[in-house]
Amino acid sequence: MRFLKEHLVALTAQLAQTAGMPSGDAQIFADALVDADVHGVSTHGLSRLNVYLSRMELGLIDPHAELRIDRQRGAVLALDAGNGVGQVQAVKALAMLLPRAREKGIAAATIRNSQHFGALSYYCNRAAAQGFILLATTNCEPAMSPAGGSDAFFGTNPIAASFPTGKGFPIKIDLSTSAIARGNIIAAARKNEPIPLGWALDTNGNPTTDAEQALLGTVLTMAGHKGYALALLVELLSGVLSGAAIGPDVGSMYKDLDRKQDIGHFFCLLDIEAFMDRTEFLRRIDSTIDKLKAGRKLAGVAEILVPGERSARTALENERLGVPVSAETWKEIESWCAKFNVAAPLPAT
Amino acid sequence: MRFLKEHLVALTAQLAQTAGMPSGDAQIFADALVDADVHGVSTHGLSRLNVYLSRMELGLIDPHAELRIDRQRGAVLALDAGNGVGQVQAVKALAMLLPRAREKGIAAATIRNSQHFGALSYYCNRAAAQGFILLATTNCEPAMSPAGGSDAFFGTNPIAASFPTGKGFPIKIDLSTSAIARGNIIAAARKNEPIPLGWALDTNGNPTTDAEQALLGTVLTMAGHKGYALALLVELLSGVLSGAAIGPDVGSMYKDLDRKQDIGHFFCLLDIEAFMDRTEFLRRIDSTIDKLKAGRKLAGVAEILVPGERSARTALENERLGVPVSAETWKEIESWCAKFNVAAPLPAT
Repeated sequence: MRFLKEHLVALTAQLAQTAGMPSGDAQIFADALVDADVHGVSTHGLSRLNVYLSRMELGLIDPHAELRIDRQRGAVLALDAGNGVGQVQAVKALAMLLPRAREKGIAAATIRNSQHFGALSYYCNRAAAQGFILLATTNCEPAMSPAGGSDAFFGTNPIAASFPTGKGFPIKIDLSTSAIARGNIIAAARKNEPIPLGWALDTNGNPTTDAEQALLGTVLTMAGHKGYALALLVELLSGVLSGAAIGPDVGSMYKDLDRKQDIGHFFCLLDIEAFMDRTEFLRRIDSTIDKLKAGRKLAGVAEILVPGERSARTALENERLGVPVSAETWKEIESWCAKFNVAAPLPAT
Repeated sequence: MRFLKEHLVALTAQLAQTAGMPSGDAQIFADALVDADVHGVSTHGLSRLNVYLSRMELGLIDPHAELRIDRQRGAVLALDAGNGVGQVQAVKALAMLLPRAREKGIAAATIRNSQHFGALSYYCNRAAAQGFILLATTNCEPAMSPAGGSDAFFGTNPIAASFPTGKGFPIKIDLSTSAIARGNIIAAARKNEPIPLGWALDTNGNPTTDAEQALLGTVLTMAGHKGYALALLVELLSGVLSGAAIGPDVGSMYKDLDRKQDIGHFFCLLDIEAFMDRTEFLRRIDSTIDKLKAGRKLAGVAEILVPGERSARTALENERLGVPVSAETWKEIESWCAKFNVAAPLPAT
């Protein structure tokens, strides 16, 4: 089913507010969540609303948490999210970094004591829309083993950055350091579908095609030891340097319904104008995109895409036709609507 | 053959000085180059001395270049290496960033108009030894095609960072975004050995096991589209944002003996103490290393290593036994010694 974006944002904000979030924060949360569905990343969108609301109800997320400064120097902020809603605290952290990056050319923040906060590219794209480059990483609940090991040590530890262009969409780099995003395994498990070999190990450390076994076992890193090195880079910046939980100590949003996650994020914000004129930067990045797309194509390839191009097209389509919501997710949402006595919108025609 | 590290550094500095570099700069260059061999990364060490000296002789590298500030704001420097020796300009850039990062907690620099400057981890390890985290990227001569394409657009665009630990060695993350470092293909070509499938495409865009064909064709990205996204991230930070040559416009150090390379680097330096106490950070990173190494191992795996551990062991061994130099590299060095009337040292016993 497809729904108007505005309807989904309003509904999500209303549910979040009923769950205890202040109105402005609920709006931030709703916008971030629906933005993922708009961009075709449904694994990080409304499909997670149920677990966020459940965790708020269980007292495992504090919907009123303040964002506190643990330590600051010059262009650096070490922040404590107070176990608040990750999306809200991250948007507020970005707002604190912007004036500092304008003044110093660059600014960075660690955020500890946070939650799963959706797609990194949401924050990166917000920064790009204002002429900045945001490099972002986060640790996540343990799911991935180091090269040579079979314990779930790392999360799928993503790396992201977006860059403004003159092409009507930002270049959006956003990738997990795992062979596959864990959301894809969750999606396969929900549909009772098998997964390809090479994605995951079972609990005994053997390769598996069973999505449920993979969720109990571990995901493999991308590109073997290189993915391991990048996952560790993310863990050191987001987990170790932030003061958050590290690796296997991070709480699981689905499995640990008795403790907080204590996830850590790392943001590094660059003001392009500190390095070169904005017009010059746009000219250079646009020409890079043009040259990439004009290159020779492999047999069977219709078009060379730059990262972010496909999801920008998906977003345009979803804003026109309505945003798809799976039947399962919609059922969860309807049950929260019933519980909170909130009217659900009708599908887009 | 193995040689004492001090002998190799002194010899390299003498040759570089004879080639026209000021004495202090020649020392920096020699230290950086030999450090790669010490750490077992001979592809980025003395095996490249011949081409560096040749390019200086041809006037394609300016051994006297100043490092100029194009633009600065707060904690950001946009630098012009003046077509100088990359290693020297990078060490000087790092020295300029250190006081800024101490004051502001973080500082960043782009460096344009530079050369191939060896292993990124040399600069990262220097920063780690002083309690800082250096994130470093560089673009390189075109060698790698984007996902879906077969033109050599990107270099093997590496990403690196080192982190101080209490373990006697830094965690050293340093990886090319290609399926394999181009140095490995160069090494195979020199030995007339085949390369595995999956490393490279030939000039027609077909998979190849011929190292010479691979050098004429393109290297594949690591992990398909994820490696493409990371290679583009590196190109945007190091090439586009710096004002250096971009992608296919970067000069080749071996093939283009009629023009400069105009390579771009990106450095981002974090002062750990701006985020948390140094002792707390070391406690946290050491415990992360301990936990990783204590995890369950896959069958046949004797030890789980953290990135940087193996090369630190290699460095200890090479400092004890002498630093290995291949017969081919030594022959090149001897011919420069003859030309410059410099005495070559004897091998270590």
